[in-house]
Amino acid sequence: MTPEQARAAFRAGTVAPTSGWAAGFTQTNLIAVPRDWAYDVLLFCQRNPRPCPVLDVTDPGSTSTVLAPGADLSRDLPRYRVWRHGELAEEVDDVRGLWQENLVAFSIGCSFTFETGLLAAGIPLRHLEQGRNVPMYVTNRQCRPAGRLHGPLVVSMRPIPAGLVDEATAISGAMPAVHGAPVHAGDPAELGIADLARPDFGDPVEAEPGDVPVFWACGVTPQAALMASKPPFAITHSPGHMFITDRRDSEYRVTTAAR
Amino acid sequence: MTPEQARAAFRAGTVAPTSGWAAGFTQTNLIAVPRDWAYDVLLFCQRNPRPCPVLDVTDPGSTSTVLAPGADLSRDLPRYRVWRHGELAEEVDDVRGLWQENLVAFSIGCSFTFETGLLAAGIPLRHLEQGRNVPMYVTNRQCRPAGRLHGPLVVSMRPIPAGLVDEATAISGAMPAVHGAPVHAGDPAELGIADLARPDFGDPVEAEPGDVPVFWACGVTPQAALMASKPPFAITHSPGHMFITDRRDSEYRVTTAAR
Repeated sequence: MTPEQARAAFRAGTVAPTSGWAAGFTQTNLIAVPRDWAYDVLLFCQRNPRPCPVLDVTDPGSTSTVLAPGADLSRDLPRYRVWRHGELAEEVDDVRGLWQENLVAFSIGCSFTFETGLLAAGIPLRHLEQGRNVPMYVTNRQCRPAGRLHGPLVVSMRPIPAGLVDEATAISGAMPAVHGAPVHAGDPAELGIADLARPDFGDPVEAEPGDVPVFWACGVTPQAALMASKPPFAITHSPGHMFITDRRDSEYRVTTAAR
Repeated sequence: MTPEQARAAFRAGTVAPTSGWAAGFTQTNLIAVPRDWAYDVLLFCQRNPRPCPVLDVTDPGSTSTVLAPGADLSRDLPRYRVWRHGELAEEVDDVRGLWQENLVAFSIGCSFTFETGLLAAGIPLRHLEQGRNVPMYVTNRQCRPAGRLHGPLVVSMRPIPAGLVDEATAISGAMPAVHGAPVHAGDPAELGIADLARPDFGDPVEAEPGDVPVFWACGVTPQAALMASKPPFAITHSPGHMFITDRRDSEYRVTTAAR
C-alpha cells in the first residue's frame, strides 16, 4: 500500500489507527490552530523537541503540505478531533467545513515512523500483534511552557523484550525527528503512570513474559497542551489516527557516515 | 578560558572573532526582532534547519537564555549589528539601550561549535592558522520563504586537505544542531560564488596546496534575510562575533549508540 492509497482510503471513509499502514513512510501528528496562536505552538515545539518535532507548517488557511504534494490535511486523515476552549467538542472523519481561513497546521513527527525499523530488526510490537492502537499516557513531567501554551509530556508505550531494549533505543535514537530514543524504560511510576492497563489515549496492550515497558515522547503532547491552555479553537488528529506522508522513513534517519 | 570568562571579557570591551574561544563550548548566532516578526523568523528557521537550527528563543523583552544562565544577550557578545528597514544602521559593542521590550532573541547554532571536533581529529583550520575570521559567502540558493521573510543561503568556507574531507563531513554531520554536514565541497561556482578571495562576510583565507574548499550552511543566513525582507528593526551579532554559551559541544552531538 502506498501513502497515496492509504490517504485515498481515509478520504473515502475508512477509519483505523494507522500503525502498520504504508510501511516505510513517515506518519505525522496534526495540530491546527488560529494564526494568532501559531507562534505559541511553534515555540512550544521548539522548546520541547522530543515530543514535538515539527516536520512542516502550513501557510494560514492552506490544507497543503510539502510532506505530501496533492494531499489535503482536512480530508486525508482517518479521524479528527475538534477542540473548543480546551474541550473535545467532536470527533469526525472530515474537517473541510471547519477549516478556517486563518488556520495554521503543524505536522509533527510520529513514533509509528520508526516501527518499520524496529520490526526489520526483529523487535516484536505487541500492539500490532494484538491488533490494537498503541497505548499513550499523560506523565508527571511538565513541558517547558511557551507563551500561553503549557502542559504535561505525553508518552507512547511499547512492551519490548528486555534483551532488545538497547537495540530499540539505538534504532529510534537515530531518528530524532520522530521522537528519537525512549525517554524512559522500566518502572511506569517514574513517569507518574499509575496503571499501564488504563492508558489516557489508545488501547491497553498486554506485555509478554520478559517484556519491559518502554516509553517514547509522543506527538499527542500538543493535545494535552490544548486541554491545559484552552485556545478558542483547534483541530487535531485522533490519537493513533495519523497523517501518512510521502516521505520515506529513511529521510529522517540521522547518518553520521561520510558521503 | 571558560564561557563565563569569555563573556566577561566581551562585556568589558574586548572585540574579536570568537572562533577558537572557550573551546568545547557551543557558540550561537543572534537575531533579535520585534515580537510581530518573531513568528516569521521562527518559521523561517523551521523551514531552513540547515542554516538556521534554533537552540533557544527568549520571551519578549528578556535578554536571558537557558543556554547560559546569568548571561546578558545585550552585553555579552563582542560585537553587534543594528538593522533598520533591512539596512545596517550601526555596529556597536553593547545594545542595552536598544533592547526594546517587545524584542524576541533567537540563538542559532554556529559552525564554530564543531571546529573543536575537527581540530581534535587532526583536521587543520586555515582561518585559525592565519589568525582570521572565517570567510562567509552569499550563495545562489534561495531559502524556503516564511511569511514576510525570504533570502539566500549563506555559507561559511573552510579549506580542508582533500583526504580529510570525508572525516570532516562525518564529524560535522553528527551535529545537525550546529549546521551538520557540509552543503557542498569543491567548485565554488556550484553555489554561485565567483571569487573565494572576496567573501561577503569575514576575511579571505588562503588555501594550502591540496586543500578543497568545503562549505557549510551558516547562521548569518538570517542577516541576509533581514537585508532582503526589511523588517523595521533587528539586532544581530556581527559575523564571526558569536555568543558563547555554557553548553558543551557534546550536548549537540547526535548519538545513535544504546544507552
